[in-house]
Amino acid sequence: MAGLPLDQVRTLLAVVDEGTFDAAAAALHVTPSAVSQRVKALEQRTGRVLLLRTKPVRPTESGAVLVRLARQLARLERDARAELGLSGAGEATRVSVAVNADSLATWFLGALTRVPREPGLCFELRREDEDHTAALLREGAVMAAVTSSPDPVPGCSVRALGRMRYLPVAAPEFAARHLGGPLREVLAQAPVVVFDRRDDFQDGFVRRLRRGRGGASGVRHYVPTSEGFVEAVAAGLGWGMVPEAQADPLLRTGRLVPLAPGRSVDVPLYWQQWKLDSPALAVVAEAVATAAAGALRQ
Amino acid sequence: MAGLPLDQVRTLLAVVDEGTFDAAAAALHVTPSAVSQRVKALEQRTGRVLLLRTKPVRPTESGAVLVRLARQLARLERDARAELGLSGAGEATRVSVAVNADSLATWFLGALTRVPREPGLCFELRREDEDHTAALLREGAVMAAVTSSPDPVPGCSVRALGRMRYLPVAAPEFAARHLGGPLREVLAQAPVVVFDRRDDFQDGFVRRLRRGRGGASGVRHYVPTSEGFVEAVAAGLGWGMVPEAQADPLLRTGRLVPLAPGRSVDVPLYWQQWKLDSPALAVVAEAVATAAAGALRQ
Repeated sequence: MAGLPLDQVRTLLAVVDEGTFDAAAAALHVTPSAVSQRVKALEQRTGRVLLLRTKPVRPTESGAVLVRLARQLARLERDARAELGLSGAGEATRVSVAVNADSLATWFLGALTRVPREPGLCFELRREDEDHTAALLREGAVMAAVTSSPDPVPGCSVRALGRMRYLPVAAPEFAARHLGGPLREVLAQAPVVVFDRRDDFQDGFVRRLRRGRGGASGVRHYVPTSEGFVEAVAAGLGWGMVPEAQADPLLRTGRLVPLAPGRSVDVPLYWQQWKLDSPALAVVAEAVATAAAGALRQ
Repeated sequence: MAGLPLDQVRTLLAVVDEGTFDAAAAALHVTPSAVSQRVKALEQRTGRVLLLRTKPVRPTESGAVLVRLARQLARLERDARAELGLSGAGEATRVSVAVNADSLATWFLGALTRVPREPGLCFELRREDEDHTAALLREGAVMAAVTSSPDPVPGCSVRALGRMRYLPVAAPEFAARHLGGPLREVLAQAPVVVFDRRDDFQDGFVRRLRRGRGGASGVRHYVPTSEGFVEAVAAGLGWGMVPEAQADPLLRTGRLVPLAPGRSVDVPLYWQQWKLDSPALAVVAEAVATAAAGALRQ
């Protein structure tokens, strides 16, 4: 990569972040044609198409490599300036993190509010399935992620955070209406709440109960927010697998009942982050590990 | 469109819904090569590429038109069968709706739980910005949407739901640290919480205070869930525009303070739905209108 013109790499990043050439030009205080020329020059130099000219603009696979490089350069430069006392007031260090919805709804924000205010950090959170946060890390869209995969993304380090426990629960009226008979058959046929089309969690639980013979086949409601999911289950739309932290208060007040006492599913979570000697990232990683140690099963 | 082979149109829909040719084949109980042949035949007949062979598969603009057709056909067929008493047990009518995050976090689920259980409905919710839900309607990905646009998507009807009121608020410690001086300058420079990169709401409020001279220019934290946004503001990460329904309880207990008493921003919301004589859709539309009338400003 030696000799890549860094102003062109930075311009590429601005286009991806801002979504259009015009918006990137405004952010960089240059003309749109200057932006366009720099991106073209970079494409000629690397011999690859770097951007898909969609709306918003998206990086190609080769483009994503350079976007990641640009973010890492920016991070190192900002950290160096902060150490030298050169950052201006109001110029904060951005830490971008991909987090799964259930972590965001339970323990993750507590971690961020624990980060000391001193270093002037700002956070950019991206909500993504724990199975897919690693992709954002690979693309360079974020510099750290809460993920379900212990396999490090190239260039990243991994640290175990603990296990998030999910309990099969339902509203009491729902349980009264549907329970009776072996649980594995009841759950396979009763209405179920599912996060989105990628959520295989409820099906997986039923398949395990039934030793592989099919998942949940009843009515399914898709509710794609963590809090909405719990609310839909508590309102009696269906049963669902709910994180312990969200289920516990509702189990205590009787708004939810456990469907299979003693049975639960644990999802191990990991923190993956770029291998960079960045004080900002280190402070966040430390706060996340501490919060996770308190909130997740170890 | 006369003479389009409906089994091919249905196959196209299955591929888009399931994401791959193999998964569509499994869902339709045919071989993957049958799926592939039907899609190819449909592409030859229409003279257009209908699918982008990505992972997951995505419809092209022409493909989206046929996907919408397929969903509308399926809806009409299911309604007719239900009226004729032909639907089997456990065969529920799916109603797919795009909803903005703040509606989902406040009044929308209450509407769904109010829908009578009788017709055997199931819901597929998609979370999307109120400015972008119309796009999902246009693509045929959903059959109804809560949107901020009163302009009907072609083939859709529109109904006003009311206005969602947003208040500029912050944590008391935050206000004590940052307030003092004219509000328009304070808010322009103080840390701010923003939903995501598309969220222009806080900036718009500052621009109006400053009569167009620039938005919020201080530290920004991006927190892309409705509940997480409120929690981040209450934890003192920054100020933010919070829906009245979420702010009110926290204002009462003193966890939030109003930054500009008497000032607020109202976002009008609309219900857009396919113009179809579908009893299932009508029941949902009615429940949504009733819940909105109670929860939104009229």
